[in-house]
Amino acid sequence: MVLRVLDQRALPTRIRWRDVDGAESARDAIKTMVVRGAPLIGVVGAFGLALELSRRDPGPEAARALAERVSSARPTAVNLPRAVSRVLDSYLRGGANEALREAESILEYERESARMIGVHGEQLLMDGDVVLTHCNAGALATVEYGTALAPIRVAIEMGKRIRVIADETRPVLQGARLTAFELVKDGIDTTLISDTMVGYAMSKGLVNKVIVGADRVLMDGHVFNKIGTYQVAILARTHHVPFYVAMPLSTLDPTSSPEDVVIEERDPKEVLYVRGRRIAPRGVKVMNPAFDMTPPEYVSAIITERGIAEPPYRESLTELLGQAQQ
Amino acid sequence: MVLRVLDQRALPTRIRWRDVDGAESARDAIKTMVVRGAPLIGVVGAFGLALELSRRDPGPEAARALAERVSSARPTAVNLPRAVSRVLDSYLRGGANEALREAESILEYERESARMIGVHGEQLLMDGDVVLTHCNAGALATVEYGTALAPIRVAIEMGKRIRVIADETRPVLQGARLTAFELVKDGIDTTLISDTMVGYAMSKGLVNKVIVGADRVLMDGHVFNKIGTYQVAILARTHHVPFYVAMPLSTLDPTSSPEDVVIEERDPKEVLYVRGRRIAPRGVKVMNPAFDMTPPEYVSAIITERGIAEPPYRESLTELLGQAQQ
Repeated sequence: MVLRVLDQRALPTRIRWRDVDGAESARDAIKTMVVRGAPLIGVVGAFGLALELSRRDPGPEAARALAERVSSARPTAVNLPRAVSRVLDSYLRGGANEALREAESILEYERESARMIGVHGEQLLMDGDVVLTHCNAGALATVEYGTALAPIRVAIEMGKRIRVIADETRPVLQGARLTAFELVKDGIDTTLISDTMVGYAMSKGLVNKVIVGADRVLMDGHVFNKIGTYQVAILARTHHVPFYVAMPLSTLDPTSSPEDVVIEERDPKEVLYVRGRRIAPRGVKVMNPAFDMTPPEYVSAIITERGIAEPPYRESLTELLGQAQQ
Repeated sequence: MVLRVLDQRALPTRIRWRDVDGAESARDAIKTMVVRGAPLIGVVGAFGLALELSRRDPGPEAARALAERVSSARPTAVNLPRAVSRVLDSYLRGGANEALREAESILEYERESARMIGVHGEQLLMDGDVVLTHCNAGALATVEYGTALAPIRVAIEMGKRIRVIADETRPVLQGARLTAFELVKDGIDTTLISDTMVGYAMSKGLVNKVIVGADRVLMDGHVFNKIGTYQVAILARTHHVPFYVAMPLSTLDPTSSPEDVVIEERDPKEVLYVRGRRIAPRGVKVMNPAFDMTPPEYVSAIITERGIAEPPYRESLTELLGQAQQ
């Protein structure tokens, strides 16, 4: 049994699949960004570990080490360590079959959450809206509906005319390569802009709403998401455009403070090259933080599978989290 | 006699030269961005027309048509029509030799202005400053010192330790390809970031000043410059970072209002491709404005060859313009 994942690095020019059959192949797929997006790397990490445990049944100590290998593939999104530790706990409690069932239940949870994020979030969208989104928090980052794209998909299913502006999201170009790809494939009217054009588009009144996903959200509403999210949020506020974050509650980190969260610094090559072509001279230094932090005062609302949280977030998120734990 | 220009589209990976010997080759070099940057396209337009006039001496009517061909190569920067019309007037008044002398005097003026922008602007920089710049307003956009980069060069000559952060400036990547290239070549400590990282860098306190060039500045201080300038200005203000515009007074447009200025919309291919590689799927729409407008309230000061203009700009720029006309 293997998990077959779409290699997102090859999109949109090639469709290439890859097999994840254990802890190392899951770690590698996550680390090299074959798969990315907080919910999806959680699901892939969970299945990678569960498949390995069910094949080898290595015992508690080795299982803990395998879980740590998978968890540490990337540091910022909270879904990955959480999903992996759920699978590990199930294994320690009930054995290999229990671990596989847990991975399946994480997948099912993310699928259902995405749909419900769409159902709640579509209420924020009006017929005729143009929604700007940053990076990719769509089907390719999650399962099926996506997070940021779910409200758009559901609103369109309900007959609202919604258009999307996708910024390209350098350095890895998730907006151009992934968001544009999946939206165009689904027949949704999508305009691609460079990351330099966000302020211009807003100043011309071309953007009515912003919706982005998240890699980790703290209880007080600090949002860790793809680099560039923070500046889109500032531009949205300057132009009085609502800025929404869409996330399953599995992305909520109930214990960390802003200073606890590690912002992953990735390979300078991502900045120095585009699709294999060098764009800058030798001798130049590079900064390449993969994520940034948007403070709660820039976030108009947070859309979850249990409903929409409004400021102050510590209260509204605590309430939703309480419901989620039933 | 020909003007030999560096083909900036090939940088930083190749050094390729091109000859400009008349109106059509000047128009083509400007339109296709072999050369770019407001002062430089003025100089190239002036020489292209002057060389053509001095070779053919075609008479007033044909001269006017040639001037119009060159002037209309790109619509936004004001230096181009102004330089071309100075050459045309000289021809109409004094013949072909006068036209050539005028082109040379425009070149000389831009060279001297760039140096003086550096001399005035360096006073704004402190030892240890990190200066963020957008696009390329350096030697490659102008002559020798550049505009935005001139204060940095002069400050370093005077012994101040200044580091530069260059954002890559999609879609045409002038920051990555040109600014990084000329600064690294001159041994200046330069860090390249993606356009998505400007807000992050400022929020981390990594940027002390912003200096950008301009394609056209109105008397009330509205600044037309490379797409993305506007959002850098908003981010600078949000983070209390001074935002300076450096320009020769030849970039000042004393008569237009904001609504008069045409923002050039360029080929969608610039957004869809990077260095020849496609980055987005078929079927996606594209927006590609080449410039944007930064309102005067975001501009801390304007550095010119005659001194530094502070708000309110109508007064300070009028005074500098009066001095310039002696």
